[in-house]
Amino acid sequence: MPVVVTKVPREAGRLADEFATLGVATVHEAQGRTGLLHRRLRPIFRPAAVAGTAVTCEVAPGDNWMIHVAIEQCREGDVLVVTPTSACTDGYFGDLLAASLRSRGVSGLVIDAGVRDIAALTEMQFPVWARAICAQGTVKETVANVNTSIVCAGQRIAPGDVVIADDDGVVVVARKDAERVLDAARKRVAAEEKKRARLEAGELGLDMYDMRKRLAEKGLRYVEAEPDD
Amino acid sequence: MPVVVTKVPREAGRLADEFATLGVATVHEAQGRTGLLHRRLRPIFRPAAVAGTAVTCEVAPGDNWMIHVAIEQCREGDVLVVTPTSACTDGYFGDLLAASLRSRGVSGLVIDAGVRDIAALTEMQFPVWARAICAQGTVKETVANVNTSIVCAGQRIAPGDVVIADDDGVVVVARKDAERVLDAARKRVAAEEKKRARLEAGELGLDMYDMRKRLAEKGLRYVEAEPDD
Amino acid sequence: MPVVVTKVPREAGRLADEFATLGVATVHEAQGRTGLLHRRLRPIFRPAAVAGTAVTCEVAPGDNWMIHVAIEQCREGDVLVVTPTSACTDGYFGDLLAASLRSRGVSGLVIDAGVRDIAALTEMQFPVWARAICAQGTVKETVANVNTSIVCAGQRIAPGDVVIADDDGVVVVARKDAERVLDAARKRVAAEEKKRARLEAGELGLDMYDMRKRLAEKGLRYVEAEPDD
Amino acid sequence: MPVVVTKVPREAGRLADEFATLGVATVHEAQGRTGLLHRRLRPIFRPAAVAGTAVTCEVAPGDNWMIHVAIEQCREGDVLVVTPTSACTDGYFGDLLAASLRSRGVSGLVIDAGVRDIAALTEMQFPVWARAICAQGTVKETVANVNTSIVCAGQRIAPGDVVIADDDGVVVVARKDAERVLDAARKRVAAEEKKRARLEAGELGLDMYDMRKRLAEKGLRYVEAEPDD
Amino acid sequence: MPVVVTKVPREAGRLADEFATLGVATVHEAQGRTGLLHRRLRPIFRPAAVAGTAVTCEVAPGDNWMIHVAIEQCREGDVLVVTPTSACTDGYFGDLLAASLRSRGVSGLVIDAGVRDIAALTEMQFPVWARAICAQGTVKETVANVNTSIVCAGQRIAPGDVVIADDDGVVVVARKDAERVLDAARKRVAAEEKKRARLEAGELGLDMYDMRKRLAEKGLRYVEAEPDD
Amino acid sequence: MPVVVTKVPREAGRLADEFATLGVATVHEAQGRTGLLHRRLRPIFRPAAVAGTAVTCEVAPGDNWMIHVAIEQCREGDVLVVTPTSACTDGYFGDLLAASLRSRGVSGLVIDAGVRDIAALTEMQFPVWARAICAQGTVKETVANVNTSIVCAGQRIAPGDVVIADDDGVVVVARKDAERVLDAARKRVAAEEKKRARLEAGELGLDMYDMRKRLAEKGLRYVEAEPDD
Repeated sequence: MPVVVTKVPREAGRLADEFATLGVATVHEAQGRTGLLHRRLRPIFRPAAVAGTAVTCEVAPGDNWMIHVAIEQCREGDVLVVTPTSACTDGYFGDLLAASLRSRGVSGLVIDAGVRDIAALTEMQFPVWARAICAQGTVKETVANVNTSIVCAGQRIAPGDVVIADDDGVVVVARKDAERVLDAARKRVAAEEKKRARLEAGELGLDMYDMRKRLAEKGLRYVEAEPDD
Repeated sequence: MPVVVTKVPREAGRLADEFATLGVATVHEAQGRTGLLHRRLRPIFRPAAVAGTAVTCEVAPGDNWMIHVAIEQCREGDVLVVTPTSACTDGYFGDLLAASLRSRGVSGLVIDAGVRDIAALTEMQFPVWARAICAQGTVKETVANVNTSIVCAGQRIAPGDVVIADDDGVVVVARKDAERVLDAARKRVAAEEKKRARLEAGELGLDMYDMRKRLAEKGLRYVEAEPDD
Repeated sequence: MPVVVTKVPREAGRLADEFATLGVATVHEAQGRTGLLHRRLRPIFRPAAVAGTAVTCEVAPGDNWMIHVAIEQCREGDVLVVTPTSACTDGYFGDLLAASLRSRGVSGLVIDAGVRDIAALTEMQFPVWARAICAQGTVKETVANVNTSIVCAGQRIAPGDVVIADDDGVVVVARKDAERVLDAARKRVAAEEKKRARLEAGELGLDMYDMRKRLAEKGLRYVEAEPDD
Repeated sequence: MPVVVTKVPREAGRLADEFATLGVATVHEAQGRTGLLHRRLRPIFRPAAVAGTAVTCEVAPGDNWMIHVAIEQCREGDVLVVTPTSACTDGYFGDLLAASLRSRGVSGLVIDAGVRDIAALTEMQFPVWARAICAQGTVKETVANVNTSIVCAGQRIAPGDVVIADDDGVVVVARKDAERVLDAARKRVAAEEKKRARLEAGELGLDMYDMRKRLAEKGLRYVEAEPDD
Repeated sequence: MPVVVTKVPREAGRLADEFATLGVATVHEAQGRTGLLHRRLRPIFRPAAVAGTAVTCEVAPGDNWMIHVAIEQCREGDVLVVTPTSACTDGYFGDLLAASLRSRGVSGLVIDAGVRDIAALTEMQFPVWARAICAQGTVKETVANVNTSIVCAGQRIAPGDVVIADDDGVVVVARKDAERVLDAARKRVAAEEKKRARLEAGELGLDMYDMRKRLAEKGLRYVEAEPDD
Repeated sequence: MPVVVTKVPREAGRLADEFATLGVATVHEAQGRTGLLHRRLRPIFRPAAVAGTAVTCEVAPGDNWMIHVAIEQCREGDVLVVTPTSACTDGYFGDLLAASLRSRGVSGLVIDAGVRDIAALTEMQFPVWARAICAQGTVKETVANVNTSIVCAGQRIAPGDVVIADDDGVVVVARKDAERVLDAARKRVAAEEKKRARLEAGELGLDMYDMRKRLAEKGLRYVEAEPDD
């Protein structure tokens, strides 16, 4: 039977703001190229960048009832993560639900389904990552789990995990890995800053990364273009 | 043989401006979740919101000849609705045709095919809902029907029906249902305004909609998260 | 074995600026509706419009190593064109590579694969036409060809060809055809300007293009709508 | 409110057997290239060919309740046509429902959604045209219309219309057009038989259809291949 | 760093044969509509039905090296489950690898990517569920995990879990749930047998499931078709 | 203006039968993983395997006129290769055209568009690789090129090139490379036969290809599964 799990630990939430600054691509690399949700999840407006602790929510196809249940479990700094139990692109979420989430301090929504009222959501600047935009609404008939471990857009997400979302997509970091991944991400950004300066100054990646010898070993040859006849 | 039907009744057109304000999601709900065109039709720029009486136009794949014929049938306050007789994403429509439609006071274009010149269309702020953006143009070889009843993106549309389009998609309201649907939509918006105020003030949907008893009856249980060991 | 072809002729590059002004749809028409890349390539921000001489680059799936090699072959006024040897939507390209291309004066990137760091690329206003946006990066393991003739998004592109990209898509003009196509495109634009003025003034395409007789010959008939009963 | 329409006229049903023999492609041509359902509907086994009078059925996403209601309305020689009110690929239909339809003499199922138990359906040789194969079942919560006019896979279908389905797809013929279309289809098949014999004997379509002059008028030229140097 | 986990527990394997008989749709229902892999995984020939203990294998895009590593971990009665770390439809698997798996008694392959040599695999009757058929092979450059917990086609699969695959798709049952789910599935099949007999005898689902009262409560009405005028 | 090129060299045709035996996957590997058409081209029945010299044919969207022109250019042992100038899935080809091709000794059809009459084509055993099955036919209005170099499903094909198609897909070998590629393919098959025998006998690929050392160098580690508690 479906359950709502309450009092989920959120200690990783204190790292969320810094994760949001580092960005999805960097965090994804920093944890060994894992945790990226499918790229079909796109922001409804750009730019947008948030991070927060996951409240997870399953919904039946064409039925958004459990989002109402999940909202009560949301707190300041959370990101609501919604996954349908069967693929569906209906508009599960609109400006009324966004008003409710905002009143609770929720940072944004990640949903592997459709949303609507996007003009209003854009005006509110409430950030949403969704699979589709669809005006067709949903019913309220079927119960499902809130705050259990789910698979959303191909990735496992547990309640309390850190979800980071920006213009490049959405990535999840397991709650217990958050400190370690954040540290690796910081180092990566620092290294990239130095590389950017060198590349902007005209240095080639071929030289900066010392690639020429290895390319030759793999058999790459340089030849001049033949003149036209 | 193909026909062009002239002197189509447009009495529902007087309601168009109010429909545009109410929006696609609201109108779709207000007529019992019917009439929504497939979500593959997207606006080429956002925000955009129009409503008007449908002039319908069939086109052959890769052939936009009938759009020229349909334009003559268009009047102030119309929305031109174009559907290919076989799926096609070529660019049937560009800035010259938009200039022609605008000179006749047409509010916008809905097309289950491709369009091009979208930089110019955006600069003109001529609103278009299309299935694709594609620079490949079309020929002018084949005749087809104008102002007959068509199926566009999965919905039946008759000439003179009201077509409403915004950032969420496109919906059609049958001419004879327009008054009734408009009235239902007005009531819905009024009710939503009150709900929005309560949700913004922090009231939960669970309480506002009185859902808790029914959720329990469906078997939903609340459990506390287990502590990590 | 893979090769890098150097000293590619770029004499068509002097025509690039004018091609960019004329735009993709016009150029595509002007060369007889050939050369259009698949519409799945979309700009990561709009508006965007560039043209330049192609530097071509093959990459293995999930492997962006050859982009580093290709950058060394790029010069002021080039457009880098990247095609994977097997369909892949990973994020091959981000802001560091863009910084490197910009430092060499490259006008933009066309890639039949994914890109990332799009918030940064947008802020830099470095134009990119891509098949996907995906935060997942790539490895550097496999060598492939640079500056050989490739097929990208369904079109053959040789190094030194002119690539034009704007909000409508991407088109390629063979190096040796560039003068001729440019001339045809100029004439087309001049003719369109006159047509636009007439259409804006309310003249119908049916009359301007003298279509009525041919429509009747094809069997098109005009009938009045039947009154409702 | 949803309705079930009973006592639907089925007088076109007496033509069904001959329609099945003529086939979808022929019937589609014979009624002027109209009435073809989207090609996403495919038979779950091949070869398969049926025709019958339509019983129409709407279903909510992920909810097959109304199929049970529709079955009661089915009679010998009917084809059940099911369309979801929102796109859904769940498995709405399996071997138990097929057993029930077969016991009533129903010829087959056309559904713009998913089906399951296809090994059993294949063994039973119960023909089904579906959009997807998916083991995920559905609930029974939501009522919808039976035997009203629907849009299924892009085509309008009224109860009592003739639905023809074979390895090429599915086509609908309006009840009142059935005699006329059948007659046109018969003539088409007869003409094709003669053409087939001539083509098999080696005559070219170019000559049989007398195309050479018109091709030349359109500008087609013949040139010899240049010898390689 | 990537690991290969050895000596995975396989005690659920003794239940595999019975699971295969019960089938994917039944097992999916019996465990509360969970565990179904995305329907994009299809058998390369039909009919096909297997079940076995999962050996899991990650592969890089365009790189099948780890399949060789995974094969050594496979034993009689296993099903090999392969997931790419980035979406890829290349042909990772062909008849040579199938010969190797068969020599070890492996029951089949589930892969969220492409396969090739399907004529030979069909002749061998080696069952494969794949996302794509593609002749393009792969390289052997990148290491990844074998026998760790993975997400494949949207579902989490741990080594030693039971994987059941047939013409309807693929479902996973967690190792520890296998006894309980098998028991529920057996009961479901027994109940279905009785229902099938009644339906074949002409009893309606409306009566057998006692639906009429609830349909009326939901507002469903029956009306007679209006006669044509 | 469109041209039909006649007297195309076909000297590579004498190698076609052996190419057909070797198969698409092998030939694709043997020419360095190039030349594979997009996997969206699938055989309409299986098994099927042919090879022959390409006669190339462009067609307008929804217009199969040029197939009639191309047939006259076909000879014993050819494969007809058809590509639309704009993406289209209409049914361009059916049993009458197949009868005509067969009477000229043509081995099969490769078409990046739709076909119909597939029950008849299957009964005739006329092999076709197509992008779609669609009953909707086409018109005969627009001329295009026959026997010029085209791009079909992402690959460049020149008339006289060898096209090989089987259950895995379609590959093209340039006319001048045919001898060399055939020789490489033969060697590959011979090597595979030996490998197959060893793998069937239980030898591991890890040992046969001597992979263990390189895997360890890349950092792969073996660990035992932790016992459940």
